[in-house]
Amino acid sequence: MEELQDEILEESKEESREERAARKAREAQKALDDHIDDVGEYLSAPDIAYHLRKLKKHDEEIYEEYLHKLDTDDLAEATFDMPNHMLKDMLDVIPRDRMVELFEELESDDQLELLEDLSEINKEEAKKIFDELDDDDKEDILKLSSYEDDEAGAYMQLELFSARLDEQVSVAVDRLRDMRHSGELEVAYQLFAVDEKGYLKYAINLSDLILYNFSLTVEEVVKSAPKDDDFTPITVHDRDKISDVAKIFGDYDLSVVPVVDSRGVLVGRITPDDIHDFMTESATEQIYNLAGVDDEVEDESESLIEVGRSRGAWLGVNLVTAFLASFVIGLFGATIESYVALAVLMPIVSSMGGNVGMQALTVTVRRLALGDINFEHAKEVIKKECSIALLNGAVFALLVALVSFVWFKSAMLGVVIAMAMVINLMIAGLFGAVIPLMLKKFGVDPAVGSSVVLTALTDMIGFFAFLGLATIILL
Amino acid sequence: MEELQDEILEESKEESREERAARKAREAQKALDDHIDDVGEYLSAPDIAYHLRKLKKHDEEIYEEYLHKLDTDDLAEATFDMPNHMLKDMLDVIPRDRMVELFEELESDDQLELLEDLSEINKEEAKKIFDELDDDDKEDILKLSSYEDDEAGAYMQLELFSARLDEQVSVAVDRLRDMRHSGELEVAYQLFAVDEKGYLKYAINLSDLILYNFSLTVEEVVKSAPKDDDFTPITVHDRDKISDVAKIFGDYDLSVVPVVDSRGVLVGRITPDDIHDFMTESATEQIYNLAGVDDEVEDESESLIEVGRSRGAWLGVNLVTAFLASFVIGLFGATIESYVALAVLMPIVSSMGGNVGMQALTVTVRRLALGDINFEHAKEVIKKECSIALLNGAVFALLVALVSFVWFKSAMLGVVIAMAMVINLMIAGLFGAVIPLMLKKFGVDPAVGSSVVLTALTDMIGFFAFLGLATIILL
Repeated sequence: MEELQDEILEESKEESREERAARKAREAQKALDDHIDDVGEYLSAPDIAYHLRKLKKHDEEIYEEYLHKLDTDDLAEATFDMPNHMLKDMLDVIPRDRMVELFEELESDDQLELLEDLSEINKEEAKKIFDELDDDDKEDILKLSSYEDDEAGAYMQLELFSARLDEQVSVAVDRLRDMRHSGELEVAYQLFAVDEKGYLKYAINLSDLILYNFSLTVEEVVKSAPKDDDFTPITVHDRDKISDVAKIFGDYDLSVVPVVDSRGVLVGRITPDDIHDFMTESATEQIYNLAGVDDEVEDESESLIEVGRSRGAWLGVNLVTAFLASFVIGLFGATIESYVALAVLMPIVSSMGGNVGMQALTVTVRRLALGDINFEHAKEVIKKECSIALLNGAVFALLVALVSFVWFKSAMLGVVIAMAMVINLMIAGLFGAVIPLMLKKFGVDPAVGSSVVLTALTDMIGFFAFLGLATIILL
Repeated sequence: MEELQDEILEESKEESREERAARKAREAQKALDDHIDDVGEYLSAPDIAYHLRKLKKHDEEIYEEYLHKLDTDDLAEATFDMPNHMLKDMLDVIPRDRMVELFEELESDDQLELLEDLSEINKEEAKKIFDELDDDDKEDILKLSSYEDDEAGAYMQLELFSARLDEQVSVAVDRLRDMRHSGELEVAYQLFAVDEKGYLKYAINLSDLILYNFSLTVEEVVKSAPKDDDFTPITVHDRDKISDVAKIFGDYDLSVVPVVDSRGVLVGRITPDDIHDFMTESATEQIYNLAGVDDEVEDESESLIEVGRSRGAWLGVNLVTAFLASFVIGLFGATIESYVALAVLMPIVSSMGGNVGMQALTVTVRRLALGDINFEHAKEVIKKECSIALLNGAVFALLVALVSFVWFKSAMLGVVIAMAMVINLMIAGLFGAVIPLMLKKFGVDPAVGSSVVLTALTDMIGFFAFLGLATIILL
């Protein structure tokens, strides 16, 4: 409500566009100044990126000044909320040695992400920055970049708090102190206990670890714990799908999960922020894909032409299927000419079919994505969706038949549309379940393109059934 | 792929339905036995619920036996993954005193959730269980139940690790030990430091706390920390919307957040599992609402009739709007009769309009949900969506005009459909942006019902524009 009032107030002042940008810029400058001086409200990384963007809109010079003035640490975190044109500014404005410092503030997974983003803008400069990084950092980045985008390994941090079983806790804590002071590790939730070969044996929550005497070895801590305390870790593999890892986080109520390689050697950890980002992105992807929209283009691109072209691709596919539906109608031109009520009622059959189909499709896509169902449940899912569609098909067919009868005073027209609706709604339920299951089976994202294929089918079959039955029965 | 192969193998064996259920039950029994004996793979709470369900399907007696045999702790966690009919079994089969024990295994927020679930099944019995709980637990549940479902307070745990500023760390750790041993607290990530009035002052990650001498007071730890270590906490208020809290988790990369009341007094904490659950549920809700599906009914109900009825409600609304569109077509009956090509091409205008509109709508709904835009950006969003729609409208209008001309050998028909498409796609882009913004402004979920309203508009306006222009130009 407050925003709304602000909006109205703003309107009533009839502030010009320039005045408004200038005011926004002043507010942004004030917020950033307060943040730099450590007074006022604390700014998150997205806040900082937001204020920089407002500044850029109004005054490039002041904007660049703030790119220099901000803490390297703050700037590093803010890069993940910057659109490409601001990342380009970073490369242009900030000297390479400061970019290298900026990378050193980041943990390994973030380093890789930023490097990939910068490479897309200026491959050469990104390469030069990479070359000037520490050997350790370089090695970490190379290791992480060997994973596919959807693998757990690509989301993990290599920095973690671990100790050998025969090590004293106090020695491990000393190492943690060094890592904290050097900025190598921001925060740890568990001590990962490994044997001499690096195999992960236990994961001990720090809230358990601090209950023991730090002069004990890790193994002694585990042995002296009450029987109820089970330090056996839930682990994921580096080549596991990140979507499966997110499910495990949810199923086991985890806050951090150690990542092991195929032999069981500890290689990294995945933290809640990684899972949070993945979940947000994958939900957006599903929602957008169902509507024929590309999430990456929408989020990254500032160009209307680019966004329009990307949306246009799916519209093109839809146009082809719409012409196919028209072609089906065209087959029955003579029927329509002698019975114009058919043209009037036609869209009802296709619209209801499309809706019933989208309900079945959406539920199936989402349940597949959540791992609630898989191909094993195919029969069960198809049976369920067909039953529901048939149920509603029967009810609405009757209703539509009645209205059509009253409207056009033709009982047979009512019979025709009722039959067409039952057929089309059944088909809609069937394909709403089958299409995503098939796509999943063939390793394609069940959300991509499925709605276009579905409505193509329900339109064509709906028109064919309705007009075909009419030709047989009414003429 | 493995599942697929299993499926095929299964099929080829032509296992009967009963044989299959029996085999599944044997597998479930084996998994649960292994879990109880602490051998084999560790089962998550959803796993346990899943196996119990399989058992129930095959043999109610063995199923009930396992409800008795399982650890109270395991059973308690599994309840959150049980459908209502299994919760009912719990109430029927498990003696009340064991149900009370089961509640005592849970943290406050989970206690409230389970109690609410049980109340829906048997209010009286749930009340009796509540009456037999500890006074402390009762008080906690009452406190949490005073919050609305969408408020941070409803998601928080009251159990947490806190200490007064003037307290020795070792004393606080002793208290943590008691809480761990009594099972009151599963895990802690931070020590929350409060002053003598309970105001939250600092939040110290345990990975920082363990670096200090535990004979120091909390205040001395804070004072002796290096300047870089800022223990000022990011907090949320108990009356904040949980959706805002989830955004803060993401923006600040948090793993836990302390909750304070309006005065700043520490009242609870929100952990990653709470946020994980909320994010999963809210994404499902958005996706389902856009398709006219109720997420709660879909997830909870095992009855096809109930699910069908809930989906039918939206289909009913869609039917009314479909008849409105038919009514629009009916106005131009004479035109169609003398120019049947119009009936053939008509669905192209409405289908393309629907698609362009759904693209704009989906992007706007999602960006509103993510907090990327709000009402303040209304003008900007509307301008953007209209521009993209106009761009694609122009391109596809031309394309459709061309095909129509070639198909029906009429240049004027091409002109008519092109004009209708530009109009309808503009309208689609406009309302795709406006509808969710308006709903949000009036405090309604922007995803609910918006797609039905949108397609009603694009259908009606599309048909009216196309057939109206045809009447003027072609006749």
